[in-house]
Amino acid sequence: MFLRSDNIAGVDPHILAAINACNEGSAEPYGGDPLSAKLDSEFAVLFGAPVRVFPVTSGTAANSLALAAVAGPFDLIACHAAAHAFGNECGATETMSGGARFLPIAGGDGRMDVDATTSALANAQRAGASGYRPTALSVTQLTEAGTTYGIEHLRALGALAHELGLRFHMDGARFANALASLQVTPADLTWRLGVDVLSFGGTKNGTMCADAVVFFDLTAAANFERRLKRAGQALSKSRFLAAQLLRYIEGGLWLRNARHANAMALQLADALSRVAGVRVTHPVQGNIVFAELAGDIIPALAQHGIRLRVKSFREDGTGFVRFVTSFATQSVEIAAFAEHLDQRASL
Amino acid sequence: MFLRSDNIAGVDPHILAAINACNEGSAEPYGGDPLSAKLDSEFAVLFGAPVRVFPVTSGTAANSLALAAVAGPFDLIACHAAAHAFGNECGATETMSGGARFLPIAGGDGRMDVDATTSALANAQRAGASGYRPTALSVTQLTEAGTTYGIEHLRALGALAHELGLRFHMDGARFANALASLQVTPADLTWRLGVDVLSFGGTKNGTMCADAVVFFDLTAAANFERRLKRAGQALSKSRFLAAQLLRYIEGGLWLRNARHANAMALQLADALSRVAGVRVTHPVQGNIVFAELAGDIIPALAQHGIRLRVKSFREDGTGFVRFVTSFATQSVEIAAFAEHLDQRASL
Amino acid sequence: MFLRSDNIAGVDPHILAAINACNEGSAEPYGGDPLSAKLDSEFAVLFGAPVRVFPVTSGTAANSLALAAVAGPFDLIACHAAAHAFGNECGATETMSGGARFLPIAGGDGRMDVDATTSALANAQRAGASGYRPTALSVTQLTEAGTTYGIEHLRALGALAHELGLRFHMDGARFANALASLQVTPADLTWRLGVDVLSFGGTKNGTMCADAVVFFDLTAAANFERRLKRAGQALSKSRFLAAQLLRYIEGGLWLRNARHANAMALQLADALSRVAGVRVTHPVQGNIVFAELAGDIIPALAQHGIRLRVKSFREDGTGFVRFVTSFATQSVEIAAFAEHLDQRASL
Amino acid sequence: MFLRSDNIAGVDPHILAAINACNEGSAEPYGGDPLSAKLDSEFAVLFGAPVRVFPVTSGTAANSLALAAVAGPFDLIACHAAAHAFGNECGATETMSGGARFLPIAGGDGRMDVDATTSALANAQRAGASGYRPTALSVTQLTEAGTTYGIEHLRALGALAHELGLRFHMDGARFANALASLQVTPADLTWRLGVDVLSFGGTKNGTMCADAVVFFDLTAAANFERRLKRAGQALSKSRFLAAQLLRYIEGGLWLRNARHANAMALQLADALSRVAGVRVTHPVQGNIVFAELAGDIIPALAQHGIRLRVKSFREDGTGFVRFVTSFATQSVEIAAFAEHLDQRASL
Repeated sequence: MFLRSDNIAGVDPHILAAINACNEGSAEPYGGDPLSAKLDSEFAVLFGAPVRVFPVTSGTAANSLALAAVAGPFDLIACHAAAHAFGNECGATETMSGGARFLPIAGGDGRMDVDATTSALANAQRAGASGYRPTALSVTQLTEAGTTYGIEHLRALGALAHELGLRFHMDGARFANALASLQVTPADLTWRLGVDVLSFGGTKNGTMCADAVVFFDLTAAANFERRLKRAGQALSKSRFLAAQLLRYIEGGLWLRNARHANAMALQLADALSRVAGVRVTHPVQGNIVFAELAGDIIPALAQHGIRLRVKSFREDGTGFVRFVTSFATQSVEIAAFAEHLDQRASL
Repeated sequence: MFLRSDNIAGVDPHILAAINACNEGSAEPYGGDPLSAKLDSEFAVLFGAPVRVFPVTSGTAANSLALAAVAGPFDLIACHAAAHAFGNECGATETMSGGARFLPIAGGDGRMDVDATTSALANAQRAGASGYRPTALSVTQLTEAGTTYGIEHLRALGALAHELGLRFHMDGARFANALASLQVTPADLTWRLGVDVLSFGGTKNGTMCADAVVFFDLTAAANFERRLKRAGQALSKSRFLAAQLLRYIEGGLWLRNARHANAMALQLADALSRVAGVRVTHPVQGNIVFAELAGDIIPALAQHGIRLRVKSFREDGTGFVRFVTSFATQSVEIAAFAEHLDQRASL
Repeated sequence: MFLRSDNIAGVDPHILAAINACNEGSAEPYGGDPLSAKLDSEFAVLFGAPVRVFPVTSGTAANSLALAAVAGPFDLIACHAAAHAFGNECGATETMSGGARFLPIAGGDGRMDVDATTSALANAQRAGASGYRPTALSVTQLTEAGTTYGIEHLRALGALAHELGLRFHMDGARFANALASLQVTPADLTWRLGVDVLSFGGTKNGTMCADAVVFFDLTAAANFERRLKRAGQALSKSRFLAAQLLRYIEGGLWLRNARHANAMALQLADALSRVAGVRVTHPVQGNIVFAELAGDIIPALAQHGIRLRVKSFREDGTGFVRFVTSFATQSVEIAAFAEHLDQRASL
Repeated sequence: MFLRSDNIAGVDPHILAAINACNEGSAEPYGGDPLSAKLDSEFAVLFGAPVRVFPVTSGTAANSLALAAVAGPFDLIACHAAAHAFGNECGATETMSGGARFLPIAGGDGRMDVDATTSALANAQRAGASGYRPTALSVTQLTEAGTTYGIEHLRALGALAHELGLRFHMDGARFANALASLQVTPADLTWRLGVDVLSFGGTKNGTMCADAVVFFDLTAAANFERRLKRAGQALSKSRFLAAQLLRYIEGGLWLRNARHANAMALQLADALSRVAGVRVTHPVQGNIVFAELAGDIIPALAQHGIRLRVKSFREDGTGFVRFVTSFATQSVEIAAFAEHLDQRASL
């Protein structure tokens, strides 16, 4: 069952300890507690810039509320055609925004093509009143293909967005993995490239149920408390979310976790690429490996109790599989999996 | 600061232990874990009836999604004028339902008056196409005034709802306190009275961030997974919500907690009623006490470090104050508070 | 059947002639025709100020789109409890705005009480993030009670609105009747009192299906073409709406029609007040008369083929009736009706 | 300027006469008038089946309200990628439905490919709760490419829709042109193929501002009066819409108009196809002709005062142009246009 997704892991023990530690006594609810009060300043240090930070309990909540802050009832959000917010959140952004729409754009390895984006946005602006008004551009970092956007790629998209008067959003459900992979600072990967608002992922990398919306454009945060309340995301016992997020970033825990997960993915990709009948399909730049497996491999693995998440089957029986590693993935697990693969291959 | 609300308390230690206990190993996300799989059956035992149970992370999420399941874009939800879902959730229900509206109805001590409800719904139905279509009736138990609805009162409202073809919803943010107060079974207070869907509160009575929507009318639960996803309430690490809810109801913990909180409220009301210049304004039937305090009392208490939640001030300086006790409130705290009040009164 | 409403009348012959006259040849659609091009300038002359004018095909469309321009997804619109936009348009404003809410406010004779409005808005602002954000105040002129707001009353409401940062909207479904009654200029009754946007009624006073949204605050008109399109109100053969509105205001036709309707209402009220068992309940300041009729009168009139619009019946059988006159109401009709009443009274 | 679109025409004289004729006396508003009362029965005769008919004032209103009747807040509507409701109505359907989404599907000559539709819907159903729920399939007849769907093509799409539990909608903005082209009965092209609800176009073929939603699945019409009211489409002087629609279908006027427009398009296509540098790009099966014009032709025509609607320019300067004929297009106009083309070609 392991390797299916990074959200099969539990809570990082350090973070669980922080949850336990903050259970003493009573505290003001709804962000009035001392831990919640520290979020803005601690994240400002982390990002080297003034920020507003709002904890939420899921990545979908982060994306939809972040995007609702920059796109209203008849506004258009350019994103990759495979973007989670567009394809896997059942209309959360449309709901929270009161009627925004996504403009899906193609691009290899999960990255929005700059020319295609430029052209699609130009078309949208030409449409005038019969079409939605472009107001936001959203990238996913790590992408849905498990790759990173390079710095220059993001800089070009950010520049395009701002040139057209759009706000620039980053879905950072796996932001830590991208940071660890690119070996840059949080500032280098966000506001220095023009990012206005970030969905800051925690849950896939060690928290229990704590992600956040981080605003670099502080004006976009106006009325965000109302958005949270209206979405059922204004949690009364707010200290428990703040405790998770604070411990997550304390002492580099989040980056250690991400580096580990990334290393496990590389180990896995290496093992996969040595097996006949397996082809790794995208560059492995984070904690995700996509691979095509010949039709007979998947049932062979199943006999060993290994269940895979097959995204699709080809007509020839080839399975397109997504593997995801996490902070909790162990090297011996990867090794054991590789051994199973080898055995299968040697049959 | 204490006595301000029941959500200033932390997590019940038993529930925190359950959270810790479930952090072993990996588990299927999004409700596929073994704990989540037990929710329906455990709650079915609790309620003595088949149910569908969906964990959420806030009472607002519970209310808005429960109501969205029974009221759509141009539907009307009758509720008390003081209902939290109407007045304190910034449009969560309107958002999740795609455009339902509340029909606020008067009634003493926080309870919807049956005649007023009958009349208002009749008017709404007469309005025809120029008005919203009544499809739901929502009661709050405990009410916003800290009182309970009696069984017969609820039975009458439930019968009225069903006679008119409306679904019957109960906001049970403090359902345990009402149960403990009325000394009836969960079945007696819900589906036996016609309740179709319940917002089942946990957070105010000991969980960290776990409430639930409980459907007795199983047809109303259709597509509820989509509603959760769209609201950002489909949590990946679902086992941690399930663990809280399962421990909450295990061995009667929830009712012990509620009984304690209710007892503390009675002790507090007793202390208040013995002080000159204080008038308890509503029957104390749960863990909430409303009182009017003469204008000089509040600053006097503030000098002792006691901050109260003043709902409003009268022109003569009288303050209308809400006190809320919880599972964590200690009898000695109430006693100390009473002593402060007495001292003030003896000046 | 007559006297039921002003929308039972057909189209003013002058306006029908204008419709016929503009059917020559082809014209650019969607506002690109020469008549549509004249709307802004002709209405600017009428109002003595720069305006943007957008034709729509119903008063509900005008109200909901005008209000959507000044209130978004979690915004609050203060209005009278009897306001048509709140009570009789089945959520049009909520729909077009993406989730605004009305704050109904009491007041005698259909007019929002200034103190009650002040107090309700202060409460709403105090509620903070748990409540909607007040952004607009909407008055109806003529009111739903058939009365006019006086200039000073409106000035006070407008000042209150702007002081609190709210936009000021006027539902002028019967704006012409109010103007005719108050004998002031269009400017005096709108932007000089702080009105930012006006639902300009035409249909009840002689057009076929042409009302308009008139912006005095031109910034509020941003993106209004998208709002029209999205609402299905961007009509392709726009010239036919423009022709109606231009002819409506040409040479004072609209005011002549309104003066006539008002005079008919006064004649009717005079007749009613002379009959035993009839009580006119509100000042008659436009083309609407509200009256209580003793229980035996209504069936007696029905025998003469006169159907009335009874708003409600009292327990003693008294009927509360709304009469509305129009540009097409004839003095002889009123006289005949009065005669019927007298005969009934003489029995 | 002519040939730009069919909505540049005015009102068919017969229909204008009907509007004039119904202006006598007063009539019940909001559909209570005698003409509105005849709509259902007259259209039932036309379609040879029981129907419910609701007039609206634009094609966008018809599409968005028809689709809202079959798709709610998290529902998916499969349509062609070029569908007007998806790409040219600025979110009207999303707004009226409270949050439905379109699933755009490819297909040559403006027609949804059956295999692609099957596959896309299967994918959507597999997505489960993370995706929208497919509930409707919408075709456009004439298509956006000016072609007709053949009977068997529609039958296959209708069968697919019903097999999957979807409702089948037809955007018939140019329904009459398709009927005239295919030479089948209204029944043959709608309910006999499984069409549940039809956007019945009138404005492009002779009415002033009258289209309609026609339900063959009468259960889908539930609450449609509320949808109309909420959309600002419940017109008070309803008789004037009914008069247009009744005259439109009386004595085959609508089909005569469509046949004429189609004939004009064929004459135009014939002229175009004889000119060097012009290529007609889609089969001409209604009143629309798409053509590529060499880069020098468009300015040459402009010198003769002929403005074309160029949809896009290629890099080589070739213009992709849409011509639309109407009931009012005259054969001599086409001939004159052809002559201009010939002259240009002879240079």
